[in-house]
Amino acid sequence: MSRVYNFAAGPAVLPEEVLKEAAEEMLDYNGTGMSVMEMSHRSKAFEQIVTEAEKTLRDLMNIPDNYKVLFLQGGASQQFAMIPMNLMKNRVADHINTGQWAKKAIAEGKLFGKINVIASSEDRMFSYIPDLKNLKISDDADYVYICHNNTIYGTKYNQLPETGDKILVADMSSDILSEPVDVTNYGLIFAGVQKNIGPAGVVVVIIREDLITEDVLPGTPTMLRYKVHADNKSLYNTPPAYGIYICGKVFKWVQNLGGLEAMKKINLEKASILYDYLDSSKLFRGTVVKKDRSLMNIPFVTGSDEMDAKFIKEAKAAGFESLKGHRTVGGMRASIYNAMPTKGVKLLVEFMKKFEAENKI
Amino acid sequence: MSRVYNFAAGPAVLPEEVLKEAAEEMLDYNGTGMSVMEMSHRSKAFEQIVTEAEKTLRDLMNIPDNYKVLFLQGGASQQFAMIPMNLMKNRVADHINTGQWAKKAIAEGKLFGKINVIASSEDRMFSYIPDLKNLKISDDADYVYICHNNTIYGTKYNQLPETGDKILVADMSSDILSEPVDVTNYGLIFAGVQKNIGPAGVVVVIIREDLITEDVLPGTPTMLRYKVHADNKSLYNTPPAYGIYICGKVFKWVQNLGGLEAMKKINLEKASILYDYLDSSKLFRGTVVKKDRSLMNIPFVTGSDEMDAKFIKEAKAAGFESLKGHRTVGGMRASIYNAMPTKGVKLLVEFMKKFEAENKI
Repeated sequence: MSRVYNFAAGPAVLPEEVLKEAAEEMLDYNGTGMSVMEMSHRSKAFEQIVTEAEKTLRDLMNIPDNYKVLFLQGGASQQFAMIPMNLMKNRVADHINTGQWAKKAIAEGKLFGKINVIASSEDRMFSYIPDLKNLKISDDADYVYICHNNTIYGTKYNQLPETGDKILVADMSSDILSEPVDVTNYGLIFAGVQKNIGPAGVVVVIIREDLITEDVLPGTPTMLRYKVHADNKSLYNTPPAYGIYICGKVFKWVQNLGGLEAMKKINLEKASILYDYLDSSKLFRGTVVKKDRSLMNIPFVTGSDEMDAKFIKEAKAAGFESLKGHRTVGGMRASIYNAMPTKGVKLLVEFMKKFEAENKI
Repeated sequence: MSRVYNFAAGPAVLPEEVLKEAAEEMLDYNGTGMSVMEMSHRSKAFEQIVTEAEKTLRDLMNIPDNYKVLFLQGGASQQFAMIPMNLMKNRVADHINTGQWAKKAIAEGKLFGKINVIASSEDRMFSYIPDLKNLKISDDADYVYICHNNTIYGTKYNQLPETGDKILVADMSSDILSEPVDVTNYGLIFAGVQKNIGPAGVVVVIIREDLITEDVLPGTPTMLRYKVHADNKSLYNTPPAYGIYICGKVFKWVQNLGGLEAMKKINLEKASILYDYLDSSKLFRGTVVKKDRSLMNIPFVTGSDEMDAKFIKEAKAAGFESLKGHRTVGGMRASIYNAMPTKGVKLLVEFMKKFEAENKI
């Protein structure tokens, strides 16, 4: 068995320790004589798994008691509909457009109400976070929506928009658990788990209790009502049980590393290794405005499509997987989520230096 | 490691061979150097997994080319909404009420249109399938809906309602792949996989192409449109990739056993072992009308709550798990899905005989 360094944007690398434990427990979880995949979601063993997963996440993110934690299905794409269906009372929302996923949320929101795009960085290929001062928050907006880290373009919010008394809703799919956040700044945080937490098929929703009501848009399916899932502690119907089990292990793994402060320190160090090299390189350069750089997704280019292709090919041959950039940005992208070891980034930079030396321009 | 005999109604027992393979491949799938959990859903390796899973299912069920196979999220509960949202053109559907899951589909359908309950077995605690002759199919019904096997009450359809030119929609969550079906009898078949196919978090939808249209109810979220998933071969957004991978392995496992004809033979044999004993026992009796008995879910009672509780407790101590009946039926229920070995049923019956001898009435 030989593991590669997997720089995929998601689904993405998971901690090797977690995978090893999962493999060991596959036929017999904790003396139950069955796999977690085979376990009734009403069993004590599974109840313990989901309760413990929630508890660990609450500890990690310091989630206040007046927030519910839900483990749902359908990914971020389904949240793009659930959010307006549940939170739009006036049928108006303010969105900031920072990339493809922000745009998808805008498009979906338009199925249900009026979406005001109050800021955008589309003019320069989403390579920065728009100025957040003097935003024109709409008086009748039900919420303000942001995508906290932009997987494709490699930007992140280092400060939040001032939304006054308006609820802030954030898609944190690609940076949840990468550093501490103050949950109380948000009405709702959600994250598809397949980048920084676990296997695709689970989405974590952290929602302030007062936003969970029966007052939803007409025709909202039962499965798309936060109240149904909150009232049933994510067990209204059969949940994606195995996925939740792996998420729980990853939460513990982060906790054992020292929690989110420690995680942030590691992530800053890892990202610096790559950004510092990019800033000094004559062949490669990052595509994002420095102050808005993501710690998780680092796009870079050589400026030549041919050279990019050559690099990606040789990197793959050397065991660095999925470095190809998103088709809308081109070039390369290294996604270095929590589970990417620092060693993986160091070896990548060594490889890039070697490649640069061999391909002087 | 000691495996129990798991009679849970779902999530349920999976083939041990499948779990062993999954454990072996956990850190390195097929030389890719990564787990299937870590793999981009746009990668060649995963594309092969999902393509092969679909192909094997098509072979097994002999699914015609004019049907699409979709792997979605949200389980059967989400299908209860997706079906009306996508198929209700007149906002009318005819339903047959055969138990709790049939009722949930009825309740959800009512969010979107008029639901006519054209037959019901609620009068005798759903212990039979209603008479299917002379059903009053509504002229304006968009479809007729049945729950093909009733997990809680242990009944199944051995013949289908005559629906004329109306589309038949069937929930096969608890008996898909248990025996051959003629897919052309249906407009849409769906099944949450967590009973007979794989880990919770995937729902299989088999839908006739002409039913897949853009003409959906207003306010139908993108993720709840069959056309979106069909056009994108179940890869519109990140699918529940690991679950699909396990499903593919289970499909292969059924194929290696000889396909659905062979599976049916095994299932008939397994069910007979238990039914024959129930019919001869003086302590235990089945709760379902003989002609409508399920091959998958077998509820039985002693007639005494105390004796039932004693049996469940002693069975559990002897390694027979999750035999407690659903709270609405009481007593016991043995779910004997495809992956339950014949040996498990034989040993259960031996245990029941011993228990009966020790508890003469």
